[in-house]
Amino acid sequence: MMKIAIDVFGGDHAPGATIEGSVQALERFADVHLLLYGDENKIEAELGQYPGVDRSRLTICPASEIISCEESPTVAIRTKKDSSMVRALEAVKNKEAVCMVSAGSTGALLTGATLIVRRLKGVKRPALGMAIPNKAGGATLLMDCGANTDAKPSYLMQFAVMASAYMEGVLGVKEPRIGLLNNGAEAEKGNALTKAAYPLLQAAPIRFAGNCEARDILSGNFDAVICDGFDGNIVLKYTEGMADVLLSMLKAELMRDTRSKLGALAAKPAFRRFKRIMDYTEYGGAPLLGVDGGVIKAHGSSNAKAFCAAIGQARNFASGNVIAAIAQGISRLPDIED
Amino acid sequence: MMKIAIDVFGGDHAPGATIEGSVQALERFADVHLLLYGDENKIEAELGQYPGVDRSRLTICPASEIISCEESPTVAIRTKKDSSMVRALEAVKNKEAVCMVSAGSTGALLTGATLIVRRLKGVKRPALGMAIPNKAGGATLLMDCGANTDAKPSYLMQFAVMASAYMEGVLGVKEPRIGLLNNGAEAEKGNALTKAAYPLLQAAPIRFAGNCEARDILSGNFDAVICDGFDGNIVLKYTEGMADVLLSMLKAELMRDTRSKLGALAAKPAFRRFKRIMDYTEYGGAPLLGVDGGVIKAHGSSNAKAFCAAIGQARNFASGNVIAAIAQGISRLPDIED
Repeated sequence: MMKIAIDVFGGDHAPGATIEGSVQALERFADVHLLLYGDENKIEAELGQYPGVDRSRLTICPASEIISCEESPTVAIRTKKDSSMVRALEAVKNKEAVCMVSAGSTGALLTGATLIVRRLKGVKRPALGMAIPNKAGGATLLMDCGANTDAKPSYLMQFAVMASAYMEGVLGVKEPRIGLLNNGAEAEKGNALTKAAYPLLQAAPIRFAGNCEARDILSGNFDAVICDGFDGNIVLKYTEGMADVLLSMLKAELMRDTRSKLGALAAKPAFRRFKRIMDYTEYGGAPLLGVDGGVIKAHGSSNAKAFCAAIGQARNFASGNVIAAIAQGISRLPDIED
Repeated sequence: MMKIAIDVFGGDHAPGATIEGSVQALERFADVHLLLYGDENKIEAELGQYPGVDRSRLTICPASEIISCEESPTVAIRTKKDSSMVRALEAVKNKEAVCMVSAGSTGALLTGATLIVRRLKGVKRPALGMAIPNKAGGATLLMDCGANTDAKPSYLMQFAVMASAYMEGVLGVKEPRIGLLNNGAEAEKGNALTKAAYPLLQAAPIRFAGNCEARDILSGNFDAVICDGFDGNIVLKYTEGMADVLLSMLKAELMRDTRSKLGALAAKPAFRRFKRIMDYTEYGGAPLLGVDGGVIKAHGSSNAKAFCAAIGQARNFASGNVIAAIAQGISRLPDIED
């Protein structure tokens, strides 16, 4: 049995969506045992809606407090010792669970993971990755997606190693092609940060495929795209938002003449499929890499399906031995003081 | 007559597209006189295809050299004194032309504009703006689009003032809403650069609308989005590339079932209109703001239509008194040493 800790009270739709997603996960994955952290009575009440659930594979773990997105991450983690998030993180730290999943405050989760689960030996900064569906039918990991707004060249070098280990271990990509997000594909392109990072990625024990542009997150020509958390966050949100904006602009045109209107109506199945591809709730959460345990950040607005997908990702994360691979990769990197 | 200098031998399709675009501009704009810089014989040969062109409003100005995108910008500008680009820039410097248009090397044009046309008093760094069509049916100026890969807070403050003057003077937007590109809309968001720039934009004589996200380039909630040239270039190219990628992903879905296929066929008119909205060749070039004259960078791959649009933009630039407005705005800014 693979034990996964669930922060039941994190996210916009908690505990309804987190419990329903957990129930779905128990049905879909026969080898997982879920530790549900949060208010026992509320959890029991929610579970009451699913009489068929296999109680032998879930354990309710009492946690009386809730960390909200409004409070200061550091203060929240330090003071709310009995919160569902802190307890779930401690389960990972104490090896009671191989991985934890939370749809709660990103800031609190990053802080908590670093303070409680702790960084892996040699890791300077943990980073958030996000697997984005690409044109080739696969996925490209964008990293860092927002854990470090200001990064140093050596951080990017480590992100590259962690992303490579994740793509290989979790998504089964052999020798992942790693790209450095830049303002052009040519080797000499870049700002101070990327110019300094380029040679470091070249020297790292990864398959460095050179500089890439933001469109390569979707092109399928790279398996992971490395950047600082500021650019990663901007590009990630843009990718999510762009599909909506472009579709609404296209829709406006489709409604402008009867012929197109009818055509759009007929093409509904395709539009529905396209929307599904672009629906990030299908792709579970963002792994936080660089800490000594599995920490998966599910989207704050996760519905049951999205949360279930995040649990599935936690499962792959654990079985993929990502942490051992990251530790091994980091140990082979030069120790750079920048 | 408004005199506009044309770098006939810049761009992937020069001189064919630049001459054809110039001819279209002469037909469309009765008040412009074009100074065509480049090899006289080649220009005459191209003009031969347009017997109907009004020769009284064009002057062929001999320039024997051509600056390519492969050579070092600084070296090219310093050594190729008789190049069509340098001559066209000198025409602006000597006030023989109010504006110049080039589809040639961006690097060379930026260097040449700074060395030859010179910066306006008080301007630290000229910057490239690009007007991008937005959801509201208007356009949003993204700036800097690539002139300065590494920027300082005071640069962003100046970019904001220049962008505001451009949107008001050229696109007629009253009190343009200026946004600061950031990893979130909240005031406290940002990396070291944007956090330091925020208060400077607040204090600047513009309508600062706060932090914005990349999607706001398309949302229509901002008239200009300010960022350093690294992020601006990444976001601009992503915006251009994303439409293609998403459309091809959508097309794949449309071809997957007969019903959708037929629907797509019927909806062709709408798709064509949408493609036209997304076709950046329709939107002319990118103004280089901060130098003492009009410099418009047309897309390197400009066809005749795109180049003609860039000339139209040069015309609006000159009539909009943008330079005076920028000089006035810059003079009202505090002198910050960062």
